[in-house]
Amino acid sequence: MIKVVIIGAGNVAMHLYQSFSEEKQIDVIQVFNRNKDHLDFVKDPELRVSNIDNIKDADLYLIAIRDEAIEELATKLNVTNGIVVHTSGSQHMKALSRFENFGVFYPLQTFSKNKSVDFKEIPICLEANSQKNLDILKHVASLVSEKNFEVNSEQRRALHLSAVFVNNFSNHLFALADDYCRENDLPFEILRPLIKETVSKIETLNPYSAQTGPALRNDQKTISAHLDLLDEDRKKIYTILTESIQKLHGKEL
Amino acid sequence: MIKVVIIGAGNVAMHLYQSFSEEKQIDVIQVFNRNKDHLDFVKDPELRVSNIDNIKDADLYLIAIRDEAIEELATKLNVTNGIVVHTSGSQHMKALSRFENFGVFYPLQTFSKNKSVDFKEIPICLEANSQKNLDILKHVASLVSEKNFEVNSEQRRALHLSAVFVNNFSNHLFALADDYCRENDLPFEILRPLIKETVSKIETLNPYSAQTGPALRNDQKTISAHLDLLDEDRKKIYTILTESIQKLHGKEL
Repeated sequence: MIKVVIIGAGNVAMHLYQSFSEEKQIDVIQVFNRNKDHLDFVKDPELRVSNIDNIKDADLYLIAIRDEAIEELATKLNVTNGIVVHTSGSQHMKALSRFENFGVFYPLQTFSKNKSVDFKEIPICLEANSQKNLDILKHVASLVSEKNFEVNSEQRRALHLSAVFVNNFSNHLFALADDYCRENDLPFEILRPLIKETVSKIETLNPYSAQTGPALRNDQKTISAHLDLLDEDRKKIYTILTESIQKLHGKEL
Repeated sequence: MIKVVIIGAGNVAMHLYQSFSEEKQIDVIQVFNRNKDHLDFVKDPELRVSNIDNIKDADLYLIAIRDEAIEELATKLNVTNGIVVHTSGSQHMKALSRFENFGVFYPLQTFSKNKSVDFKEIPICLEANSQKNLDILKHVASLVSEKNFEVNSEQRRALHLSAVFVNNFSNHLFALADDYCRENDLPFEILRPLIKETVSKIETLNPYSAQTGPALRNDQKTISAHLDLLDEDRKKIYTILTESIQKLHGKEL
C-alpha cells in the first residue's frame, strides 16, 4: 500500500482525494487543511487534520494549495522519507528543494466543485529530483490515470499557459457569444452542437487544418459586416483574432 | 414525396445532399453546379446538372453556394411554384425576394469535406416570406434534424457572428496552443482532455459560471509570468482576452 497525505481543500485536493481513495493500492492516510471546516469532502472525519505537526509519515505528500502558499507551507512540513510533490502548473519544482525527495504531480485539467471528472482520462505531468523518485511517481500516476507524461518545469509552465488559451480563453469566447445571443433574443442552446463539433473536429484534424471562416477565406465583406455589428470591446477581440488567423495562415490583411 | 433540388457543390451542399438523400419522404431530384466535375458526391450521375435551364420543377430549391453568388444565381433560376431558400448565415432573406415563395434554411454547423456530421443534431434556422412557407420549411427541417428554430435575418446574422467566436476563434486558440506546445517539445495530445472538458463543462454550467483561471482570480503574478513567456502577437491576444474576462466579471485591472 502506498501511503498518501493530501494537503489542501480546494478543487484539485478534493478531486485528488476522490480518485486516490478509490484506488486499492493507495491508502490516503490524511488530508490536511488549516481550516477543518473545508474538509467535509473527506468521508472519515479521523483522516481530517488541521494541525500540520500531526501529519504522519507517508510515502507521498501531495500539496494541492494556492501557488503563492506552497513555499511557506513547505517550510512547516516535517517529512523524513516520503516524496513531497506539488500539483501546480506554474510553480517550479525547486519550490520544494528543501526536501530530500521532491517533485511535481500536475494533473492537467480544469476542476470544479460540483462537476465530477473521469480522473483516468486526465494527463498527469510528472517531474522529480531523481530517476528513482520519478519512477515512483509514474507508478502512482498509473494507478489513477491512463496517461502520464514526463514534463520539466519550463515545459510545465508552457503547458499551463497553453491551458489558459484552450480553456480559459475559449470559455470566455463562449461567454461573449452567450451574451451576444441574449442581446439578440437567441438561446445559447443553438450554438452548443457547433461548439461540440469544433472540439470533435480536432480529434481527427489538427487545429491548423480544422480552421474555417471569414478570416481564413479573407472574406473582407463578411468581416466588415461583422465589425459593424460589434461594440468597441468585442470589435477589438474580433480584429486581433482575425489578424492572428490570417497571419498564421500566411494571408495579408 | 417532397421534391428537392440542391444548388451548389461545396461542403454545405454535399452534407445537405447526403442527409436529404437518406430521408424517405424526400426525393432529391437534382443537384446543380456549373462545373459537373465537383458533383462526384452525387451517386446517380443522372441527377447531376450543370445547365441551369435544365433544372426541373421542385417543391424546394436549396441554394448552398458562396454568399456573393446567391443574388446573381437567383436571377437565372426559373421557378414556378416551389420555395427557394438559401443556406447562408449572413445573407438577408430578401436576396431571394424575386421569387414568389422564398426563405432561409440555415444549418448552424461547421462542415468539412472529409468529416461526417450527424445532421439530426444540427440546429436548422428557418425564415420564410409567409406562414405557409415557414410551415413547409419546418416540416422539411424536422425530417432531417431534431432541432429547428425560427430565426429572422437580423438574428441569423448575430448567430453567424457568434459562430465565428465559438468556432473559428476558439479553433484558432487551439492552433496557437498547438504551435506553442510544439515550440516547447510538448505533444498537443496532452491538451485534448482539457479541451474536451472545457466543452463538457458548459453542458451543465453557463460559460459565465464555468470561467476559471488567472484572469478571473485577478492573479497578477501568474498573468505577468505568462506575458513574459509570449511573443508580441500572442501577448496582445493574451492581454485583450484577460482584460475582457475581467471586465465581464466586474474586476478592474
